[in-house]
Amino acid sequence: MTLEGYKEAFLEYLNEKVVLKQPKNLYEPIIYILGIGGKRLRPVLTLMICDLFGGDSKKSFDAALAVEVFHNFTLVHDDIMDSAPIRRGKETVHKKWDENTGILSGDAMMIIAYQCFESYDVHLYKKLLKVFNKTALEVCEGQQLDVDFESRNDVSIDEYLTMITNKTSVLIAAAMQMGAIISNVDDEQAEAIYNFGLNLGIAFQLQDDYLDTFGNAETFGKQIGGDILENKKTYLYLKALQVSSESDAKNLVELYNSNITNAEKVKHVTQIFENNNIGGLTKQAIQNYTDKAFKDLEKLKISDKNKNILKEFGLGLMKRSI
Amino acid sequence: MTLEGYKEAFLEYLNEKVVLKQPKNLYEPIIYILGIGGKRLRPVLTLMICDLFGGDSKKSFDAALAVEVFHNFTLVHDDIMDSAPIRRGKETVHKKWDENTGILSGDAMMIIAYQCFESYDVHLYKKLLKVFNKTALEVCEGQQLDVDFESRNDVSIDEYLTMITNKTSVLIAAAMQMGAIISNVDDEQAEAIYNFGLNLGIAFQLQDDYLDTFGNAETFGKQIGGDILENKKTYLYLKALQVSSESDAKNLVELYNSNITNAEKVKHVTQIFENNNIGGLTKQAIQNYTDKAFKDLEKLKISDKNKNILKEFGLGLMKRSI
Repeated sequence: MTLEGYKEAFLEYLNEKVVLKQPKNLYEPIIYILGIGGKRLRPVLTLMICDLFGGDSKKSFDAALAVEVFHNFTLVHDDIMDSAPIRRGKETVHKKWDENTGILSGDAMMIIAYQCFESYDVHLYKKLLKVFNKTALEVCEGQQLDVDFESRNDVSIDEYLTMITNKTSVLIAAAMQMGAIISNVDDEQAEAIYNFGLNLGIAFQLQDDYLDTFGNAETFGKQIGGDILENKKTYLYLKALQVSSESDAKNLVELYNSNITNAEKVKHVTQIFENNNIGGLTKQAIQNYTDKAFKDLEKLKISDKNKNILKEFGLGLMKRSI
Repeated sequence: MTLEGYKEAFLEYLNEKVVLKQPKNLYEPIIYILGIGGKRLRPVLTLMICDLFGGDSKKSFDAALAVEVFHNFTLVHDDIMDSAPIRRGKETVHKKWDENTGILSGDAMMIIAYQCFESYDVHLYKKLLKVFNKTALEVCEGQQLDVDFESRNDVSIDEYLTMITNKTSVLIAAAMQMGAIISNVDDEQAEAIYNFGLNLGIAFQLQDDYLDTFGNAETFGKQIGGDILENKKTYLYLKALQVSSESDAKNLVELYNSNITNAEKVKHVTQIFENNNIGGLTKQAIQNYTDKAFKDLEKLKISDKNKNILKEFGLGLMKRSI
């Protein structure tokens, strides 16, 4: 099946399963956030991996739904924490309703995610939930690190990688692993696909950092330089502090703390990045994680044809308009 | 074992299991809220019921911990929604840290609650989690109804009972039911103890409403008249609107919307309650739910001695300083 095919099948399932219940004020925001789009990357991965390992992808719909509901719960709560007014081009839940609604509907979403697994037999149920519990807690830890980093000036690259791994990659990896588990693979295979997802997820997030400064404004979908304007300690920023001369590093820190106009700030910071080949170094890191992911692929006991599908998927993901 | 004995054993287990991890800013608030006391009513019930049904109460520690962690998660998030500065005589989490910390640490607590169950074998695991999922979602629904009622003027007594059942009673009932499930009783017995907990929980909450107006200031622990000053649509208020004369009902609504001094407001509202025997009618409702609970007790296949322990517990709970 094509990625678009998985997505359509998933959306049909989502619309059938997620229906309005009472009290309306609790469930309406849930329907809303689950309905305003998004790539549906994680649930599609659960379905696809289950398929590629020879499982019945219909059996993986509930795990896919759990992952998507959980992911959207994190968006609802993160948007409150970031005071973000817009998500996917629409009002965020706490903006459209209020913060209390965002908190409570988010809480209910997490429970609904857990409930999705109830269709699995006891053995699969516990196996899936152990992965889900561990992953969910890691996502919270990643979000906490992200918050902590805002007020810290001594964040190392290793710490940054830990943060993005927890905040983004583990859920992508777990989405894939659950698809594999449902197709009844052994633990070693489940681990290999998890690692594939983890490394691909890190590469994906690093690429997001790269594109935010060096991407194409028309295809990236976000404002170029947004991270710089928000003083985000991205991989680019931390790498620049690590490798550049003392004076460039000093200038960079000063620019992040300065009040100069937006355009000037983006221009000067980008200049420091370019002077120190930060774009190139970041591309290298992206390549390293992509390579790692493809090495994990080799360990999979699936046909070359199916390996190729995963490889194409990885390459497709990494070819977003650099 | 005495109630105090269960509580001590539980606290020892809690202190052993809930330890500080990294990131510190995520886990410190969790240790804090779990450490500042409370009656530990729910976990004690899980342990006690498991014991009374002939189970090994040591086996019920993890379920008891899950219930207590979940209950405290609801307090952390509810306190944000209510902008409450004080809980158990100490600063609330969002006050001591900030709202974002309260949201995120609360989220992590819900996941940790789910993780507590991982020690159970697959069959027990799924059985317990189905109860837990259902209960957790009902608690969210109860909280939403409570929020909704603040801005509604047509809340019926039935709706109010649904709200307190979901917000308070179902978790007490589920705490007991899980203790019974761990002792391997059949479904009918598990349902009977659930209903005992549910009816006792409703009686307990109605008594809380009663004591808030008619209690003894020295022993109640909260300010008498607090509900009236906060314009809460309690059982007393809703019953008064239902049974009193048109003019008393009109006065009551006006008093709730008025700006008269605190002491005057409490005095006048209490006067309307007294004129219409609202205290007596509420006591009658409390008695009805307590009687229902004791009827559920008769269905239990446990010794008369053990039934008596539960009866004494129920009576003890209902004898709080009326």
